[in-house]
Amino acid sequence: MIRPLNPAMATTFAPPVMEAHRWRASTALPAGLSLINVSQAAPTEVPPLPLREAIAEAALHQPAAHLYGAVLGMDELREEIAAQWSRAYAGRVRASQVAITQGCNQAFCAVLATLAAPGDEIILTVPWYFNHKMWLDMQGVKAVPLTPGAGLIPEAEAAARLITDRTKAIVLVSPNNPGGAEYPAETMAAFRDLCRARGLALIVDETYRDFDSRDGRVHDLFMDPDWSDVLVQLYSFSKAYRLTGHRVGAIVASEARLAEVEKFLDTVAICPGQLGQIAALWGMRNLGRWVEGERQEILARRRAVEAAIADLPGWELMGAGAFFAYARHPFAGSGPEVAKAILSEQGVLMLPGTMFMPEGSAGAHGQMRIAFANCDADGLREMAARLDRLTLPRR
Amino acid sequence: MIRPLNPAMATTFAPPVMEAHRWRASTALPAGLSLINVSQAAPTEVPPLPLREAIAEAALHQPAAHLYGAVLGMDELREEIAAQWSRAYAGRVRASQVAITQGCNQAFCAVLATLAAPGDEIILTVPWYFNHKMWLDMQGVKAVPLTPGAGLIPEAEAAARLITDRTKAIVLVSPNNPGGAEYPAETMAAFRDLCRARGLALIVDETYRDFDSRDGRVHDLFMDPDWSDVLVQLYSFSKAYRLTGHRVGAIVASEARLAEVEKFLDTVAICPGQLGQIAALWGMRNLGRWVEGERQEILARRRAVEAAIADLPGWELMGAGAFFAYARHPFAGSGPEVAKAILSEQGVLMLPGTMFMPEGSAGAHGQMRIAFANCDADGLREMAARLDRLTLPRR
Repeated sequence: MIRPLNPAMATTFAPPVMEAHRWRASTALPAGLSLINVSQAAPTEVPPLPLREAIAEAALHQPAAHLYGAVLGMDELREEIAAQWSRAYAGRVRASQVAITQGCNQAFCAVLATLAAPGDEIILTVPWYFNHKMWLDMQGVKAVPLTPGAGLIPEAEAAARLITDRTKAIVLVSPNNPGGAEYPAETMAAFRDLCRARGLALIVDETYRDFDSRDGRVHDLFMDPDWSDVLVQLYSFSKAYRLTGHRVGAIVASEARLAEVEKFLDTVAICPGQLGQIAALWGMRNLGRWVEGERQEILARRRAVEAAIADLPGWELMGAGAFFAYARHPFAGSGPEVAKAILSEQGVLMLPGTMFMPEGSAGAHGQMRIAFANCDADGLREMAARLDRLTLPRR
Repeated sequence: MIRPLNPAMATTFAPPVMEAHRWRASTALPAGLSLINVSQAAPTEVPPLPLREAIAEAALHQPAAHLYGAVLGMDELREEIAAQWSRAYAGRVRASQVAITQGCNQAFCAVLATLAAPGDEIILTVPWYFNHKMWLDMQGVKAVPLTPGAGLIPEAEAAARLITDRTKAIVLVSPNNPGGAEYPAETMAAFRDLCRARGLALIVDETYRDFDSRDGRVHDLFMDPDWSDVLVQLYSFSKAYRLTGHRVGAIVASEARLAEVEKFLDTVAICPGQLGQIAALWGMRNLGRWVEGERQEILARRRAVEAAIADLPGWELMGAGAFFAYARHPFAGSGPEVAKAILSEQGVLMLPGTMFMPEGSAGAHGQMRIAFANCDADGLREMAARLDRLTLPRR
């Protein structure tokens, strides 16, 4: 035990992804089987060569690539997002309503810091993204779980019943991590109306928007001329452009909220990394067609994982979308025990539902997240074949 | 007024450096005078060419440069710091006692998050680094100001009188920003002994260590075999290697504290930027001699600014070291008014003492920080000549 220690930090759980790394490091894989890693939603391939060349060129010849920039990010990148978003969502987003962050996790932390004080409450849909829960724990803010309806789609009426006088915001992640669900435009609008009526912020994390299976505009939130009264949108450049190692994300919100965000980012970040911003801007300007190809490949993999799980006795798909399938499995034992057994017996690493839900949640031990984006269709069939050979005791 | 709004965020002041940018943008410079900007402690030159080439090479040919890495940073960089620190401080620092962050501001925030809950107290020497104060404000932690003694050197006995049962740590910045003071080894040891006796953490921010005027080991804290019980050291790669735009800093602390830091960094950062870490490692391995040349140039500029202020009627140097001179000026009016008048009348931008002290502090309005690192000796003489021509009313 170290001292002094902030008790809120002490009770925050350890990072699940690092925990999974430790399982992997301490587990001997079965003879003859290579690892199938469906534990993390991250590209494992490098960005396309022209983008890497653009980064190298900037490192050599753009002095600003090495120097401090503005706290809220590079003007050109903020303008590019404003322009592309205004087109994509048929609304009006100004550059002054965009901030760049050191990754989308930081975007969430910065926005939440402006919203909630210790003792306040934030409504998160379950299963939730564990880093959202960790930030709230560290800040002494209560995460109030919202159980979704059919297809893991949350319902505004159910959320309304959870609102108290300490509630400050509702967080939606669509396409969802870990559940894969793509929320209908009507769901988003209903949550927007609820938040507006009750004086809450609606935070919409669209980290995986570039891989949504629906063509065209997936919600109408930005068509509302007063969107910035209630809406805060989060975005990540990590997935579409394979820039995870550069840490670039974005916040779209009112100028007044961004003035508060600026205090947080100045203190925690000073400014986002410059090369990452240069890379993100180059990607937005030049890789639209390439990203669409990536999306089609992910959609093909999604069909493959859906088919594979449908054929797997005792398994039941609860949601699939973006990089994730989320499924019930038939095995007895705690979630971590089952995940470790799947790794040691068949060399497949996935994260149990217990990592995405409050302790004691019904069903959590019987669920798994399968982050399938790095496995092609053959790999996903191989994964299913291995899962079919598991000898674990069934419930 | 936006809603909802965390009241702790609302009461946090706006970033002083951005405030100074706004002064500059809204002020017409006097005819015929170019700006002399001594407001920010940041290199304005790019890193040396071989370092830029190393970054470009990594962008093109090192896949890991674009992918997620470990939360606590790249193993090789942690090992390099451990090895160089063990030599430089004649102590024993292990790689597992080093974490890499997205800049040294983030290092401070992460460490403080592990230490203090809302309502707790942290002792900061005044004048303080404003981002330290801002983080404490946002977190609902009370910053307790410690007034230093002669030469802006703080005294452990004075700090002892400020400790309450809510105090969790004492923060020392040496060489100091904004005061320039280099704290003697005996001062550091006295604070270490005080913190250990009272169960506090001692946080030592050595962002400017590479520009300390003293040759060799500047403190003996790491020679204590039990240093990690009490000491947390912070470091930045931004200054020595001109990597401000890459955001790379470090924490040296016990493994137990870093396990808590890992929760914070996983949530806020996921991992530090990879190219910045590659650049920092390359710099540590290859630029030792170059950094020593930079140090000698900074020391020459320090002598120039000391001489210039000594000759300036009514001005009095309070401290000088690393990138900073801190001085009393002779003019009447509030600190911001005087700073803005110096800018509009003579084209010199510096930050008033009011940005570095609690509101209402005695003497704050009569002090200025001069971040001289980007001005050569001629520039500093020109700055002094302009300050001498000021027609502002005197106190």
